[in-house]
Amino acid sequence: MFGLLSQLAHLELLSPKPDETVRFFEEVIGLSQTASEGQSVHLRAWGDPFHHSLTVTEAPYSGIAHIGWRAAGAEQLQTVVQRIEATGRGEGWQEPVLGHGPAYRYRSPGGHLHEVLWEVERYVAPAELRSTFPSRPQRFAPVGAAARQLDHVTIATGAMNDDIAFYRDVHGARFMECTVMTPDAPEPFFAELTNNEQAHDLALIADAAGHPGRTHHLAFWLDQPSEVVRAADVIIESGTPIEFGPGKHGHGENTYLYMREPGGHRVELFSGGYRNYQPDWEPVRWVAGEGGIDMFRNWPAPDSLLEVFPSEDATAQIVDTEKNPWSIVGVS
Amino acid sequence: MFGLLSQLAHLELLSPKPDETVRFFEEVIGLSQTASEGQSVHLRAWGDPFHHSLTVTEAPYSGIAHIGWRAAGAEQLQTVVQRIEATGRGEGWQEPVLGHGPAYRYRSPGGHLHEVLWEVERYVAPAELRSTFPSRPQRFAPVGAAARQLDHVTIATGAMNDDIAFYRDVHGARFMECTVMTPDAPEPFFAELTNNEQAHDLALIADAAGHPGRTHHLAFWLDQPSEVVRAADVIIESGTPIEFGPGKHGHGENTYLYMREPGGHRVELFSGGYRNYQPDWEPVRWVAGEGGIDMFRNWPAPDSLLEVFPSEDATAQIVDTEKNPWSIVGVS
Amino acid sequence: MFGLLSQLAHLELLSPKPDETVRFFEEVIGLSQTASEGQSVHLRAWGDPFHHSLTVTEAPYSGIAHIGWRAAGAEQLQTVVQRIEATGRGEGWQEPVLGHGPAYRYRSPGGHLHEVLWEVERYVAPAELRSTFPSRPQRFAPVGAAARQLDHVTIATGAMNDDIAFYRDVHGARFMECTVMTPDAPEPFFAELTNNEQAHDLALIADAAGHPGRTHHLAFWLDQPSEVVRAADVIIESGTPIEFGPGKHGHGENTYLYMREPGGHRVELFSGGYRNYQPDWEPVRWVAGEGGIDMFRNWPAPDSLLEVFPSEDATAQIVDTEKNPWSIVGVS
Amino acid sequence: MFGLLSQLAHLELLSPKPDETVRFFEEVIGLSQTASEGQSVHLRAWGDPFHHSLTVTEAPYSGIAHIGWRAAGAEQLQTVVQRIEATGRGEGWQEPVLGHGPAYRYRSPGGHLHEVLWEVERYVAPAELRSTFPSRPQRFAPVGAAARQLDHVTIATGAMNDDIAFYRDVHGARFMECTVMTPDAPEPFFAELTNNEQAHDLALIADAAGHPGRTHHLAFWLDQPSEVVRAADVIIESGTPIEFGPGKHGHGENTYLYMREPGGHRVELFSGGYRNYQPDWEPVRWVAGEGGIDMFRNWPAPDSLLEVFPSEDATAQIVDTEKNPWSIVGVS
Repeated sequence: MFGLLSQLAHLELLSPKPDETVRFFEEVIGLSQTASEGQSVHLRAWGDPFHHSLTVTEAPYSGIAHIGWRAAGAEQLQTVVQRIEATGRGEGWQEPVLGHGPAYRYRSPGGHLHEVLWEVERYVAPAELRSTFPSRPQRFAPVGAAARQLDHVTIATGAMNDDIAFYRDVHGARFMECTVMTPDAPEPFFAELTNNEQAHDLALIADAAGHPGRTHHLAFWLDQPSEVVRAADVIIESGTPIEFGPGKHGHGENTYLYMREPGGHRVELFSGGYRNYQPDWEPVRWVAGEGGIDMFRNWPAPDSLLEVFPSEDATAQIVDTEKNPWSIVGVS
Repeated sequence: MFGLLSQLAHLELLSPKPDETVRFFEEVIGLSQTASEGQSVHLRAWGDPFHHSLTVTEAPYSGIAHIGWRAAGAEQLQTVVQRIEATGRGEGWQEPVLGHGPAYRYRSPGGHLHEVLWEVERYVAPAELRSTFPSRPQRFAPVGAAARQLDHVTIATGAMNDDIAFYRDVHGARFMECTVMTPDAPEPFFAELTNNEQAHDLALIADAAGHPGRTHHLAFWLDQPSEVVRAADVIIESGTPIEFGPGKHGHGENTYLYMREPGGHRVELFSGGYRNYQPDWEPVRWVAGEGGIDMFRNWPAPDSLLEVFPSEDATAQIVDTEKNPWSIVGVS
Repeated sequence: MFGLLSQLAHLELLSPKPDETVRFFEEVIGLSQTASEGQSVHLRAWGDPFHHSLTVTEAPYSGIAHIGWRAAGAEQLQTVVQRIEATGRGEGWQEPVLGHGPAYRYRSPGGHLHEVLWEVERYVAPAELRSTFPSRPQRFAPVGAAARQLDHVTIATGAMNDDIAFYRDVHGARFMECTVMTPDAPEPFFAELTNNEQAHDLALIADAAGHPGRTHHLAFWLDQPSEVVRAADVIIESGTPIEFGPGKHGHGENTYLYMREPGGHRVELFSGGYRNYQPDWEPVRWVAGEGGIDMFRNWPAPDSLLEVFPSEDATAQIVDTEKNPWSIVGVS
Repeated sequence: MFGLLSQLAHLELLSPKPDETVRFFEEVIGLSQTASEGQSVHLRAWGDPFHHSLTVTEAPYSGIAHIGWRAAGAEQLQTVVQRIEATGRGEGWQEPVLGHGPAYRYRSPGGHLHEVLWEVERYVAPAELRSTFPSRPQRFAPVGAAARQLDHVTIATGAMNDDIAFYRDVHGARFMECTVMTPDAPEPFFAELTNNEQAHDLALIADAAGHPGRTHHLAFWLDQPSEVVRAADVIIESGTPIEFGPGKHGHGENTYLYMREPGGHRVELFSGGYRNYQPDWEPVRWVAGEGGIDMFRNWPAPDSLLEVFPSEDATAQIVDTEKNPWSIVGVS
């Protein structure tokens, strides 16, 4: 909120079952299509302001192909590009595409492909979809979980401390919270950074296998925690198993609900949480078992929650599941 | 809950615009069709257990053609029919129809046509609509307001005290609450009676014009008050004005939201409220302005809320709107 | 709702730490004291209509000393007493006590001590606690979880099928739902019976050890599911660990939250759920793992959830915890 | 969110009945005292991070004596002070006081006294009030409405356009939404500006009388809209009339609830609303009656809602109440 980026703008999700993935986001999560191009379909939630927030692209495996950030202004875009170039991680400017203007691409220490841009195409609703609220890009679309907008992305990294430093120093994000396996661990198992008032719009989970660029989940926002609980009913009744939730993270006090889309990637529905406006916030440090993953502390997260994508190599789990840090409960 | 009837089973709504009325109940309220016959379409909410809870029938005006009650058992059906016949208000047995077995028809003192029955056809969902909850007649249908089940009906009567006595003594309903215009009024302006744990499944509003059989609204239930507030957003975004609400009745502590369906009849979305299990409950008596209609007491109900159906005669308003008892606020 | 009893009226809880137990119910659950007598303290929630709903009595161990039911009327009281006497399980009439008139005591097949009564003393609030809602026994007391009223009790039985038959045939309760360990099990592991519109005001859990009269938990009602989630925050911040929840039972669709009071007994906060008015309801039969205990099916209940009271004999667990039927998850 | 200020830090409320005002904030709103000095008492909500967010000071009339902002950093503090000084509105640096370091004071065009500071004293809870959430300054305090943190302040101005320009250009706030009386009005009747992701942390209402420095209300935040509805019950049961609400503003989509504290000043409880991260947001312009004040559009706001403070001069109403722009409803 005090840095160079204004918000997470879009994600590109790879799916081996793109038709089913798109249908899931439409019918269960409640997004709608805005365009399709080649092997890609562009979608947005009813409250997303721009042309699209999610692109589903056909691929032989699950994963997130790139992460798009919007700068806090044209000037901030130049500043952040300069900082990226100074790290040697820049991959150069892209031509404008459907939905936004020129974007600068780069890879973070953990190997994830990002782009940053300023110029955006705003979604303009056709007359029949215009909202009674002039501030809404379109009317409320009460279908399925009826997610409002893209919220955050969680990625796996083999370079935890370098990534934290990169997002903090290059993006200008605030480092808000983390979980360590033991009190004196040299690096977190999990970390949250933010460009906004919440605990994160980007989270990092340790990838013990060290594969570059793997991802954990993408999350959409609902207007209040009680809607996430309602969405849990939508999810199970759609025939989609819930992977974990609904519950309340200690991190950020957010209400969460995890599931898998048909292509296999993890999706979260998300709401609530604190509003933190302190530029000089000192990161909160949790030890595994204290409730970072679930503050109610009475149910262990399944080992499946450690799976990251692409995950075709079954031995490439991010941590030894005998040490699943999210399965520790009962610490008072 | 301690009488002869188990529940309000179905209503037949007359509409001069039946196609639009049906579409409204499907797309905005979230019901689905189960059958159509002649000029009638049968609908039910996802949680309604029987073949249908609402029949929309084409007619030149708005109104409710009949009200269907289910007895508390085969024996109670016989008892209630005997009591009706003893009042001379019986109109005889009807042949079984689509959705239920033999029904006995009768007119209440206020001129409304009712029927009471025991045998019902339960809705059985096709495989693709079966719920993960074996107790649900079908899976949760998250469309529009996604109403769960029929809740109650409110009718206008020129025979208030006789009607209260009839429903209490013949149906065995509990008389729970009422509003009087002045502390010493000989009869209520508004009264609530119930066959269940809530304050009402049937309400009566005084019809000063004395037309027989007119009606005020029908109501569907949502799972919790926060869903009624969510539904308010659905309603305005559908292009349907809200007539009154969302707010909290003093009567029954229920959360309410009133609107009109395209044929003109009033519809309520409804949730929350006390659970009252006292067979010897003494009716609560409110004076107009104390909050029976809205417990937050800071907004007057519009005069339109006094309109009853059919209302083709513009002079046939139920009360002089200069005395709109629901427009009195600010009593502390 | 169609039987001889109107409601669960009160419970007597035994506690080896009565002062701490009372303080927990006052400060965390939000009850208030109405009187104390000898080793007993009487409490009620703000919405409880009668003199008290919970009596805490000092004892060397945890348990529920007796369960008080209110009949559906004076005549129904006579009928239920006759039925009890016909079973040979009656223990006779008690003199009136503080809070209610004559009560007839009896033991169910599982060995639990009950009493049934009709005459009650209603709570009358002092002027400063009177509510703006004339239907409320006192004003809303927004302290801690702010539970509204006593809801149900769950007891352990070594005579499952006999108990189901007793409550169904003698009390006139509806048998609504059950969980069996295997599809062809001769008796349920868990069963819910009700005198009202919800799935239960009395539940039974199999006591493999066969000790008579043991108990599992008592539950208080909150106005809507979102308040149970709010209460979870109250509970953890009070320093009380959550034993299980907040989640949603498949049984009854109720939102639950379990914890232990300082004397060791399990307490539930509870809301939501279906409203079922079918006198001819066929009991729903779940198999362990299908979601009866938690419909979101992604977290195993802890083995501690099988503990019943008194539980001083550590070998007297109700079932072999290797077969904890509530720890099975992931059935789709 | 992209300007020079990080947040609204504190307000000083004047009250002719300071003891009752303090007691109201403690018992009904749920704040707690942190210190008292002379004629002032310092309070904070359980989630407020700093020493205090509200100071109640004895005075012969109601009003807000000063508004305290925290800069986005030490450097931003210098920048904002330079900008203020360039306008000639500066009043100079204040010595550090209890709760924060040096503050620079100034008057906005509308005559309100502000201060801006960077160094703050964070609240540190005593051991018995420490939260299980390490990110919370203290544990959740479930008393009364249990407000979480200070949210915003709404002030009356006779210099609307100058004030909008001042807060936008000097503070760096975003101008998000406004209501105009007619489509071609030269200045808004009401305007919202923000330093964060919501529609406002500062709102302006036109003061037709042109008195400098008058105020309309101060607002505290609750975690979700359903808690504002719950708070409405707390408020009426405390004997405090509700002035307006609970409802949903069109502006910002926020859920609101207005009442008066015992000293007479207006207080709002507030939650929900959009999260807007667009630095180049174009202000939304509503016309009176379109729903800016209440999006459900079925109840007129009372004329009392136009009262501003100090209001000892009864003729000094901000607008002619025959034109109460918030009493227009029914626009579809």
